[in-house]
Amino acid sequence: MHAHGTTSELFRRIETSFLRQGMMQHLGVQLLRVEPGLCELALPHSERVTQQQGSFHGGAMGALADIAGGYAAMTAAGSDSEVTTVEYKINFLAGFTSGQLRAVGRVVRAGRRIIVTTAEVTHLDPHGTSTACAVMQQTIMVVAKTY
Amino acid sequence: MHAHGTTSELFRRIETSFLRQGMMQHLGVQLLRVEPGLCELALPHSERVTQQQGSFHGGAMGALADIAGGYAAMTAAGSDSEVTTVEYKINFLAGFTSGQLRAVGRVVRAGRRIIVTTAEVTHLDPHGTSTACAVMQQTIMVVAKTY
Amino acid sequence: MHAHGTTSELFRRIETSFLRQGMMQHLGVQLLRVEPGLCELALPHSERVTQQQGSFHGGAMGALADIAGGYAAMTAAGSDSEVTTVEYKINFLAGFTSGQLRAVGRVVRAGRRIIVTTAEVTHLDPHGTSTACAVMQQTIMVVAKTY
Amino acid sequence: MHAHGTTSELFRRIETSFLRQGMMQHLGVQLLRVEPGLCELALPHSERVTQQQGSFHGGAMGALADIAGGYAAMTAAGSDSEVTTVEYKINFLAGFTSGQLRAVGRVVRAGRRIIVTTAEVTHLDPHGTSTACAVMQQTIMVVAKTY
Repeated sequence: MHAHGTTSELFRRIETSFLRQGMMQHLGVQLLRVEPGLCELALPHSERVTQQQGSFHGGAMGALADIAGGYAAMTAAGSDSEVTTVEYKINFLAGFTSGQLRAVGRVVRAGRRIIVTTAEVTHLDPHGTSTACAVMQQTIMVVAKTY
Repeated sequence: MHAHGTTSELFRRIETSFLRQGMMQHLGVQLLRVEPGLCELALPHSERVTQQQGSFHGGAMGALADIAGGYAAMTAAGSDSEVTTVEYKINFLAGFTSGQLRAVGRVVRAGRRIIVTTAEVTHLDPHGTSTACAVMQQTIMVVAKTY
Repeated sequence: MHAHGTTSELFRRIETSFLRQGMMQHLGVQLLRVEPGLCELALPHSERVTQQQGSFHGGAMGALADIAGGYAAMTAAGSDSEVTTVEYKINFLAGFTSGQLRAVGRVVRAGRRIIVTTAEVTHLDPHGTSTACAVMQQTIMVVAKTY
Repeated sequence: MHAHGTTSELFRRIETSFLRQGMMQHLGVQLLRVEPGLCELALPHSERVTQQQGSFHGGAMGALADIAGGYAAMTAAGSDSEVTTVEYKINFLAGFTSGQLRAVGRVVRAGRRIIVTTAEVTHLDPHGTSTACAVMQQTIMVVAKTY
């Protein structure tokens, strides 16, 4: 995989798209890190992301993993391209009622049309202890930019 | 699969859990229908559920499908049980920038420990036209209730 | 989805590809039915397809479902195209130590580049009783024919 | 995760189950390596495992990955337990018409009832060059041994 521009240009390109995502802003997701083939996001616990027992909602973990994988893929696509999620599959490993989630998306293989990624969602408690929360495997399609 | 109580009891049991989900309330999800082996939800378009191009976010479709499948499974588990999502896989078929989503979760097979479900997410425009948006396949585990 | 030619032409087109699959011939898979958007296969029980307890091997169910979905997709692609499996996800529901498996693949949505399918694998016992064995959800890519 | 016995005991326990799998014997799969939380298999190319263009069949890659993940999980379950595949999802990355496949299954998280694994399938050519072929994510259930 070839890098497209420097990391800070990459960060800005991903950030421009990220800030347009109403749902990510609304849930409180933060863009932490962008490198060629990698994207890391954070999501602090709040009542906006809970399920019926106060834990992080699986839907929040799924959205976080989907976006981390999608933006990792975007770093591997040309800057005149957009990416779209064809599908993903996520396994949930553990639940947590406080702290924050971190999701790291990574490109497994970048083809011209299809990019395969994985994402790991981990929980970070206030003491810095990290625990695996979910693992995702995803298929991304490269499409022409339309905006 | 055996029904557990009447449909209205079923609806109330699911609704009690559903109303505890901060994220579902926050995104604006509505519980429409509960039957043995089936659950239907609605999600109107708003800026709380958009991606970078103004369409419904894949994360919103994923959360909706996950919950529809999970509550369909809960109708097939004993009333002293809770259900938890082991994993799901979702394919995205189309995107829409207005109207509402509907998700119908259905039990495919209910075992004592594992329940397999599918969910169909469709888009409904103001004229009542329905279009397929996403399909999900999911694994649910039956666990003892802890609250 | 538009049909491409009559059903018998469709059957012959799929059969030509099917008969080239060494693994399908070797396992004893039979091509039963081809219609626009649908393909049905059969696999009789034999020691070539068993796991450690004498049941049909998950790998045999997976291969059968993959091929049924893939050929269903091929009926929805142009006759000058080939299809390739991007990914699939399969849930196993039950195991059987005799009789035969049937897999029915169906197109859920056929795009120009991506086709989404599902497949149901059922067991058929000598008395004609049918039981659900596995469900699959699959992503197919349309590619130019290379042979 | 705790090891159960020494590696060679582990190898023998897995091998005993592996040799009972008619399909694996028939396809020519070899058990290479067993460690706590890990299992590696090999599959040489032959006409028994080809698809219509002479490449390794997706069904062969799927079966290989399924078994590698399943036996990795078995090393993490008690010796009085059996494991069964609940579901898996596999992405195909590349196809090859000769050489051999290697599949390495790894335990991601071992719970008492559910074990989550991944598997990587790589191609090995006669010169020792290794290329990624497929990635799998899998859910395994721990069950009582019945034979």
